[in-house]
Amino acid sequence: MATRAQQSALNIATTPIRTTGSKCNVALVGFGTVGSSVARLLCERELPGLQLTHVCNRDVARKRVDWVPQDVCWTENFEAVVRSPEVDVVVELVGGLDPAGEWIRRALLAGKSVVTANKKLIAKNGPQLLRLAREKGVHLLFGAAVAGGVPVLAGLEHGLGGDRQFRVRGIVNGTCNYVLSSMEARGLTFNSALTEAQERGYAEADPTDDVEGYDARSKLAILSWVGLRAEIDPEQIACRSITGVDAVDFSYARDLGCTIRQISWAEMKGEHVLAGVQPALVPLASPLSQLAGSKNMVIASGQYGGDTVFAGNGAGGPATAVAVVSDLLLLAKGQAMYPISSRPHAVSSDLVAPHYVRFIVNDRPGIVAAIATVFSQHAINVDAVLQKPGFPKSELKFAVTVELCSAKLLASAMHEIDKFDFLVDRPLCLPILDDHAGLSAV
Amino acid sequence: MATRAQQSALNIATTPIRTTGSKCNVALVGFGTVGSSVARLLCERELPGLQLTHVCNRDVARKRVDWVPQDVCWTENFEAVVRSPEVDVVVELVGGLDPAGEWIRRALLAGKSVVTANKKLIAKNGPQLLRLAREKGVHLLFGAAVAGGVPVLAGLEHGLGGDRQFRVRGIVNGTCNYVLSSMEARGLTFNSALTEAQERGYAEADPTDDVEGYDARSKLAILSWVGLRAEIDPEQIACRSITGVDAVDFSYARDLGCTIRQISWAEMKGEHVLAGVQPALVPLASPLSQLAGSKNMVIASGQYGGDTVFAGNGAGGPATAVAVVSDLLLLAKGQAMYPISSRPHAVSSDLVAPHYVRFIVNDRPGIVAAIATVFSQHAINVDAVLQKPGFPKSELKFAVTVELCSAKLLASAMHEIDKFDFLVDRPLCLPILDDHAGLSAV
Repeated sequence: MATRAQQSALNIATTPIRTTGSKCNVALVGFGTVGSSVARLLCERELPGLQLTHVCNRDVARKRVDWVPQDVCWTENFEAVVRSPEVDVVVELVGGLDPAGEWIRRALLAGKSVVTANKKLIAKNGPQLLRLAREKGVHLLFGAAVAGGVPVLAGLEHGLGGDRQFRVRGIVNGTCNYVLSSMEARGLTFNSALTEAQERGYAEADPTDDVEGYDARSKLAILSWVGLRAEIDPEQIACRSITGVDAVDFSYARDLGCTIRQISWAEMKGEHVLAGVQPALVPLASPLSQLAGSKNMVIASGQYGGDTVFAGNGAGGPATAVAVVSDLLLLAKGQAMYPISSRPHAVSSDLVAPHYVRFIVNDRPGIVAAIATVFSQHAINVDAVLQKPGFPKSELKFAVTVELCSAKLLASAMHEIDKFDFLVDRPLCLPILDDHAGLSAV
Repeated sequence: MATRAQQSALNIATTPIRTTGSKCNVALVGFGTVGSSVARLLCERELPGLQLTHVCNRDVARKRVDWVPQDVCWTENFEAVVRSPEVDVVVELVGGLDPAGEWIRRALLAGKSVVTANKKLIAKNGPQLLRLAREKGVHLLFGAAVAGGVPVLAGLEHGLGGDRQFRVRGIVNGTCNYVLSSMEARGLTFNSALTEAQERGYAEADPTDDVEGYDARSKLAILSWVGLRAEIDPEQIACRSITGVDAVDFSYARDLGCTIRQISWAEMKGEHVLAGVQPALVPLASPLSQLAGSKNMVIASGQYGGDTVFAGNGAGGPATAVAVVSDLLLLAKGQAMYPISSRPHAVSSDLVAPHYVRFIVNDRPGIVAAIATVFSQHAINVDAVLQKPGFPKSELKFAVTVELCSAKLLASAMHEIDKFDFLVDRPLCLPILDDHAGLSAV
């Protein structure tokens, strides 16, 4: 048995969860797509130790389904759930910060373990909530919060715990990957690809959180916490939108042996974490370039074990439910701990990489020279100029690649370039990932 | 706290491992490539709860290194290790069935937990050894036994436990993947590619276990046990050698939109497991085709979560050591259990798939017709005939693809075809994986 001193050194709570009998009783809070999939898994599979006892949702009369056993209690009242001595575990699937955060806090304070898929809340308050759970001798599990059914957090925590991860990078927003891989595969414009994604249920009516990178940065903050042991504030992670990506960018990217994906990365850099979410050129040789549709992929880079790739279904009811139920099984077996010995880190986003810059200009002589001069004044070396034929003179789209330079330095050059009156639209700047699928930082 | 009845229902041992103080003391048995990497990780990293106390190896005077702390005991005597009250965990890294099997049994009987990378032993005796560990209230962990540093077993057990996996398939032998991907990338013959792999340390002087599939089938048996919950006898898994693969096969495979890899697969099929290890044509769209060099990849297919991909460094000292040390950390944290509720299954290998059959013949009129007639008599439909120009008439290499048929039916047709006197060598038969990277069985 571990001594008290050892438990403290390991910073873990080993108190087993309370169970009221031979079963671990589960209350589902939130009966939407994921919630009903979790209920289905609990009802369909033989899962020793787990019993669904409560379903809590607004307008429960409309939600009720006949395939859930008769003795499950349906309620609209979270109070009743959190006060019920029968409930051992609260599964929070309502999402968002409020009231989910307060509900989770209340459940933990009431001595109930919590399983959640709430990336936004865990990204923002995960470390504090985990501390509260430990104080109360209960557990907080959130394997579904990153990459849905892909066991990235379990892999990092249980399978790669012996290594020291220094970088995580990946594609963790299925909507963006669906849109960008449709643009790539079928030459669609951004708007057509987004509309199609919306029609097929891969994008929300308001896609802001996805296309601007806000959804991905929540997941990235959790990956940084669990994988790199660095707690970072998700709101400090720089995000760039994918809305500026044009069909022509895929054509130029292809000429460079690349495609374009929304990439999330976080990397230890001395005492801070270099992190960002943005569209980037990805070499076709990288596994990231081969991920199509709404799938997710995370590549963790360890000092000893090198790169490990996790990929699969990052969203959707059944896949996310698998992650939730896997966490419930860990609870029922007494294996459920996140002994994450992490500490807060500052975030920077000054990525050093080769970059791709695409211009839309009203064509006239001397444009490339004018741009090259500004780059040169900033000690940025131009690597290549790409120009396809067939554009109207009033909307010529060409691209320039520049050698390794810091994003900050490039931004400063672009600030000068933005003043040129030949620009029809603001230029698009994308980093180019290195051959090893990493965003190299020097 | 789980009741005794519940523990029994879950079939798990929850007894925490013994520790002699505030540390979990580790004895390393076997100080080769992996053993010394484990020692390095234990000495270099701050790993709370873990302390290296013993190193046991033959000819220990020659093995001794100066970067291991002075107070570690070096010994050639396994007896001394297993009898030492100081030792909590024995890490077995000698490999093979004998004496490793007896040593692990002795360690468990002495009340010590065991961590091992021994795929051969775990494939053959894993379920029995795990039962013994449970009886003794200790643990047996073997995360390093499949795919080295890639956390496939942890992912299946901890992250995908809520799903029901019905198939695992993958590339789990780095030597074969190195040889085949070198043949593909640089047009090498099998022998040149093998020689190069041997020179670079990716293949043993005697490569039999790798090229014949015996190494992979051990890992496949463990994947079947942990992933599919089906215990199978590794020796019942049909293996086919990669030695018959010729440079021309990559050329014909490319014409079919495929490459060639050694694939291991196991799939639930009613009451038995359909399993095999063999070279196969893999569509270029499959992630399996994109795995180059000595890396490993496993794709697990779940009823609810769909396909999950794990990939990374499947061998080598540091990567394998990460898996071993991750298991040690789980032990130190009290999270280490493999509550695998599995049962024995019979194995069949009658795969139903389209097939590629390549012939080397002494050319004369009527050969294709003769072959097609035999296929037709067996109700096997020929799909395509592939013939590149430039072969000598005495050694013409051409290939035929046939539509979906059972491997048994094809073997029966091939038995007839083998009698033809125009054959210069035995034909090579390879299944063609379906688009979804799976070997479809109907």
